[in-house]
Formats: sequence, C-alpha cells, structure tokens
Amino acid sequence: MSDPVEFYFDFSSPYGYLAATRISQLAGKYGRGVAWKPILLGAVFKVTGSGPLPSLPLKGPYSKRDMERSARFLAVPFKLPDPFPVSTQAPARAIYWLEQKAPGRIEACVLALYRAYFVDGRDISSPDTTADVLASLGLDRAEALAAIGEPAIKERLRSATQTAIERGVFGSPYIFVDGEPFWGSDRLDQVERWLKSGGF
Amino acid sequence: MSDPVEFYFDFSSPYGYLAATRISQLAGKYGRGVAWKPILLGAVFKVTGSGPLPSLPLKGPYSKRDMERSARFLAVPFKLPDPFPVSTQAPARAIYWLEQKAPGRIEACVLALYRAYFVDGRDISSPDTTADVLASLGLDRAEALAAIGEPAIKERLRSATQTAIERGVFGSPYIFVDGEPFWGSDRLDQVERWLKSGGF
Repeated sequence: MSDPVEFYFDFSSPYGYLAATRISQLAGKYGRGVAWKPILLGAVFKVTGSGPLPSLPLKGPYSKRDMERSARFLAVPFKLPDPFPVSTQAPARAIYWLEQKAPGRIEACVLALYRAYFVDGRDISSPDTTADVLASLGLDRAEALAAIGEPAIKERLRSATQTAIERGVFGSPYIFVDGEPFWGSDRLDQVERWLKSGGF
Repeated sequence: MSDPVEFYFDFSSPYGYLAATRISQLAGKYGRGVAWKPILLGAVFKVTGSGPLPSLPLKGPYSKRDMERSARFLAVPFKLPDPFPVSTQAPARAIYWLEQKAPGRIEACVLALYRAYFVDGRDISSPDTTADVLASLGLDRAEALAAIGEPAIKERLRSATQTAIERGVFGSPYIFVDGEPFWGSDRLDQVERWLKSGGF
C-alpha cells in the first residue's frame, strides 16, 4: 500500500467537514489510507493575517451561503452551527490521543465529531461534549477527558499545527498526495486525478 | 432566452481566465448568454483588506502552483506572466467601449486579451498592447486607444466596479445566475446544476 493521503483540517471548518465525508472512499479507491491531521486554524491565521470566514468583509456572507449550497450539492447533511466558529482544541487533542490509543478508530471519531457539530449543532469546543461523542462510539469517556488535558497531547497538537504551517498549510481542508498540496474541498477532483495518474 | 449569466472578472485573474474559456459554452447549453463585466480587483481589495494572491503569506506560493495545475487539469494553455499581476484598466475599459461599439465582439475580445496575457505573456496593462490585440480582431486601433482614455468609459468601469462591490463581489471570477452568486472557477459544476435545475 502506498503512502496515505495526508488530510489537514480544523474541526470548525465546514469545507473540512465536507471533504472529510469523502476523502476516505476516494483514497481507498486508489489503495491509499488517510492520515487524519487536525490542526488549529487560529494559529495559522496569525501567520497569514487572515481570519475565520464569517469575519471577512463581503466574503463572510457569501461563505455562509456557499457552505450550505455546497453541502446540498454534495448531498451531505449540514446545518451551520451557532456559535460558529468555535475553538477546536478538545476534538483535535482527542484525535492525537487516539493516534496512540486506538488508531483504527480515528476516522469514525473524526466523522462523529464533525457530525456532532455540523449536523446536530453540539458545541464540540467543550471537552465534555467531545468526550461524550467518543463515548458514544465505545471509547472510555474518563480516559478521553483526561487525555484532552494532558500536556503531552497538547504538545502533540501544537507541533502538528507548527509542522502544517512549515509545510505551507493555510486553510482547511489541506491535502497532500505524495507531497503535492491541494487546498479546499473543491480540489477533490484534482486529488483524484493525481491519485490515478501520479501527477498531471 | 432567459437572462444572461453575469460574469464578473479581472483581466489579471488566472482563475477568471480559466473560467472565461468555459462559461460561454456552459451558459449556451442552457439557452443563456453571458454578460461580461470586467472590474478592478484592486478597488475590491480596498474594501476586503485582501490583496493579490502572490502577495499573501503561504497562500501566495500555493496559488502559483494551483493556477498552473488547474490549467493543466482543464487542458487550458497557461503560462504565469511576468509581471503578474498587472493593472487592468486598459483591457477593462476596452470592453466597456465595445459594449456600445460592437457588443457582438465582446466575447472574442475578452478571450483574445486573456490569451495575450496568460498564454503569450504580453503586458495588457499597456493601452497600446490592448489596442493591438483588438486591432488583430479587426477593430479600429486608433478608436480603441482613444476610448481607453475617454472620461465616460473610465466612469463606466468605475461604476461597474462599484456596483460589483455593492453586490458582494470580492474575487474573480464571480458569477451570478438569476441572482445566485458563485465565486471561483471551481464553482462551474454548481453553476451548471443551478442552470439546469433553477436552484438546488
């Protein structure tokens, strides 16, 4: 099996959510797995000088409309949550805990956390809510909650975000296929061609 | 025939160029024409606080790669020009001159000007070069050159850009189908579905 597709994302990113619902099947079609890499876009925005979509003049109102329309276009359930965006330390750290604890459960947990926020409107910025979602998938709630507060796990998220910035990641989703970078849920067609042809 | 698809673009926008090569055929498939509306992104950026893609941290280097790859993906000839971006008053004003003079020639001129810049690397910010391109399509070179300097034409471009900003346009291409806004060459799939279904 070739190298996994690297999938950088923020749990508060609607386009990250849309792409997350599709990337695994797409990668699998070409014999690839997915390396799920949650990061904090807030740290990225400090470098780029950008900010969350809703805060941007003109782009903000358009984005809201585009997120909802893009979800309908892809037939993915979506309801813009309130509050939006939220801090995503808790769900992101939970994924890095699973990297050690139960790597085989990462994908299911990513999708469940994304659905909790973007379908059910649950505030996953709360460690308790994040732990509840993981518990609903059979993981140990208390252990998850403890992990979210653990210095080593916090450091793992910090360093993943730093590595992302060093690799040029400036948005979510941001996908690498054998080193080639693709930004945005609207690049999955190019991702597929790249997987199929090894470049173009 | 229903209302035309409104196509806002800047002549220095690679994604505007990519979409321009396809929008007419796409609209025509659904019995629509295209209303070509060149604007100045520089004026838009004053409102949004953004800037030309190459100037943006992290996004700049990615964008260059993405423009070239997106062109290959669509099999559209493309060579990132130097200098890039350039001021686009001259070609934009030429189009508003044609609106009065020869509306039937607008599309051919838009595509020829875009190709002059993004394929042949000619600096269309120069009124002389813009007039040369129009002359190569059989239009009157001296008349085109005079029009580019005419106060009424300058005002036409200013007001088109102002109207665009009032309508929420913040990038190029920016497309309206019956009032519904779509930003980016990567939204043509949604534009097509909207044309086909009258919404989704």
